[in-house]
Amino acid sequence: ANLVLLPGDGIGPEITAEAKRVLENVASRFGHEFTFSSHQIGGIAIDSCGDPLPAETIDACKASDAVLLGAVGGPKWDDPSAKTRPEVGLLKIRKELGLFANLRPIRLFDELVDASPLKREIIEGTDILFFRELTGGIYFGDSGRSGSGAGETAFQSMAYSVMEVERIVRLAAKAAQQRDNRLTSVDKANVLEPSRLWRQTAARVMAEEFPDVKFDVVLVDAMAMHLINRPRDFDVVVTGNLFGDILTDEASMLPGSLGMLPSASLGEGGPGLYEPIHGSAPDIAGKGIANPLATILAAAMLLRHSLSLADEADAIEAAVGKVLADGLRTSDLARGGKAIGTKEMSEAVLDRLA
Amino acid sequence: ANLVLLPGDGIGPEITAEAKRVLENVASRFGHEFTFSSHQIGGIAIDSCGDPLPAETIDACKASDAVLLGAVGGPKWDDPSAKTRPEVGLLKIRKELGLFANLRPIRLFDELVDASPLKREIIEGTDILFFRELTGGIYFGDSGRSGSGAGETAFQSMAYSVMEVERIVRLAAKAAQQRDNRLTSVDKANVLEPSRLWRQTAARVMAEEFPDVKFDVVLVDAMAMHLINRPRDFDVVVTGNLFGDILTDEASMLPGSLGMLPSASLGEGGPGLYEPIHGSAPDIAGKGIANPLATILAAAMLLRHSLSLADEADAIEAAVGKVLADGLRTSDLARGGKAIGTKEMSEAVLDRLA
Ligand SMILES: CC(C)[C@H](C(=O)O)[C@@H](O)C(=O)O
Ligand SMILES: CC(C)[C@H](C(=O)O)[C@@H](O)C(=O)O
Repeated sequence: ANLVLLPGDGIGPEITAEAKRVLENVASRFGHEFTFSSHQIGGIAIDSCGDPLPAETIDACKASDAVLLGAVGGPKWDDPSAKTRPEVGLLKIRKELGLFANLRPIRLFDELVDASPLKREIIEGTDILFFRELTGGIYFGDSGRSGSGAGETAFQSMAYSVMEVERIVRLAAKAAQQRDNRLTSVDKANVLEPSRLWRQTAARVMAEEFPDVKFDVVLVDAMAMHLINRPRDFDVVVTGNLFGDILTDEASMLPGSLGMLPSASLGEGGPGLYEPIHGSAPDIAGKGIANPLATILAAAMLLRHSLSLADEADAIEAAVGKVLADGLRTSDLARGGKAIGTKEMSEAVLDRLA
Repeated sequence: ANLVLLPGDGIGPEITAEAKRVLENVASRFGHEFTFSSHQIGGIAIDSCGDPLPAETIDACKASDAVLLGAVGGPKWDDPSAKTRPEVGLLKIRKELGLFANLRPIRLFDELVDASPLKREIIEGTDILFFRELTGGIYFGDSGRSGSGAGETAFQSMAYSVMEVERIVRLAAKAAQQRDNRLTSVDKANVLEPSRLWRQTAARVMAEEFPDVKFDVVLVDAMAMHLINRPRDFDVVVTGNLFGDILTDEASMLPGSLGMLPSASLGEGGPGLYEPIHGSAPDIAGKGIANPLATILAAAMLLRHSLSLADEADAIEAAVGKVLADGLRTSDLARGGKAIGTKEMSEAVLDRLA
């Protein structure tokens, strides 16, 4: 398989390098051939050619079987008056590859339950799979400004079509069938017209095509509450781009270990994009202490979703579980105890893979 | 003072009746004259005249010094194909009274720290005051549909003007000066044009008019995370209508006792509107077990913000603190222990006021 690496900024290069080692190990162990090529995205691409997503990178991604991304951004490129920003690269690659579904599993490793800011009795057993719509909604709506002085007004439009809602609801419902067979759709239908269309469409698709899946709808403000006081009650959750941005980040705090959470962005057919959900952590970049496990788990998702190599993905996830059970922790997880570095952590995973 | 009561639906009538008793008690104790009149809003208004906010109610509110609202809504009026809905009354009264600022204090009563779903070491000492913009943004943007079949598209536009941002940022900054002198503005400026205008305007107002207030900006997705793992770090938070809806509901879960949280909605000059943040709780309506304390605390906010009666407000808040210290709990707070009813709880407050 032809895999593209987009290391990006900050700790991105360090953690993708380790995930690559794990993928290489899996390839030789299970008898696959993976070829890798690295390309630029984000701040580093702005520095080298003024464009956070060079055409060369787009072409390479489109020709690949799957893409593994590190992280983009950092204070160096934060100037609000800059011509472009690293995140523009992220938004554009989603659009270019048609990655309309962002999957974020929120799951706790038993060994890390105490890292949660939530009480054990609330968080224990939480296992949610989010489907966030990623190429529509207000993120890609018409925008502009008019007027001047105190009357100057800026706008941006949230829009959803029936087709856009149908395809992500179908993906989410199919995933629910492989899990606990429950799907929750989140919207703001009591206020927003696109949410009303979202709700109608989701309800119709579920009734017509997935009558066996237990389906309910929740308002986004209520969902922001439920995630904190009854996270265990949810199985698969599907929502729009903006609500998904907020809710998946909220949910990512529940396990208390951001460094453990991967995500996958999928389209229809083409290559998927896999990444850790944490950022580029410029404060610890280059120090060799970043936690590579979220990126390694993203590589496992890549094997499962883009290459249909479920056993190989399971093997990686099991190895990560063993490393934690053996008490190994990078500094973000160590809570004052002994911490190991980025390389030692991925070597420990390689060791448990054996 | 001329006070309007809008009991609304579900437990609304029970809890506003108790808050009224507390206000009457304060009036006689401190030598004020309060006159009360009750009017319809929400589901009960739909039932009686087909309109969730009758003109008569609007007139009464406009002629008043302040409005105390119970709660609106319930399953009876939830049919999505209904001509109107209880919440329409809520959105309309905000617009009619020009209530552009929604204030939500998120504070923990010491006695209830253990009710929080968060660990004590994370939540203890949390004291945030949210300012949510309430009459602009996507809530009141242009909306519509076009196309048909799979191509049918629904849209709604998020818009903010410089003036709308200025006035709420000023209010929030003034509140910060009375507290810990720190203000955080929350937006999604890396994606949304109205958020870029929001951020520019907020930064300008703060630099020009409030150079003494410590000011920072946070993205809405990051804020959804920070509220869970470092809620203590925030003093005053200002944000737009939709982000405020989600974040204040998320934050309202932190204390673990929704039944204790009041809110105030203020405009320029005219009457303010005060309410508990919890809903109409149709499941326990009429049983006499609802917690009246959030509504009683909303009445305290009414005294402070609309009638400039700070001592009287302090007295109510102190009485509520004493009731909790004495171990009295309604069933929502009792955690399996002994629970008292709505009336007993407000009588306990009246008793401590003496
Ligand atoms: C960087 C930003 C544009 C992006 C988003 O809002 O989608 C990020 O928050 C994410 O969730 O991947
Ligand atoms: C009922 C609904 C329209 C309302 C809102 O979204 O503003 C509610 O959630 C609130 O926060 O007061």
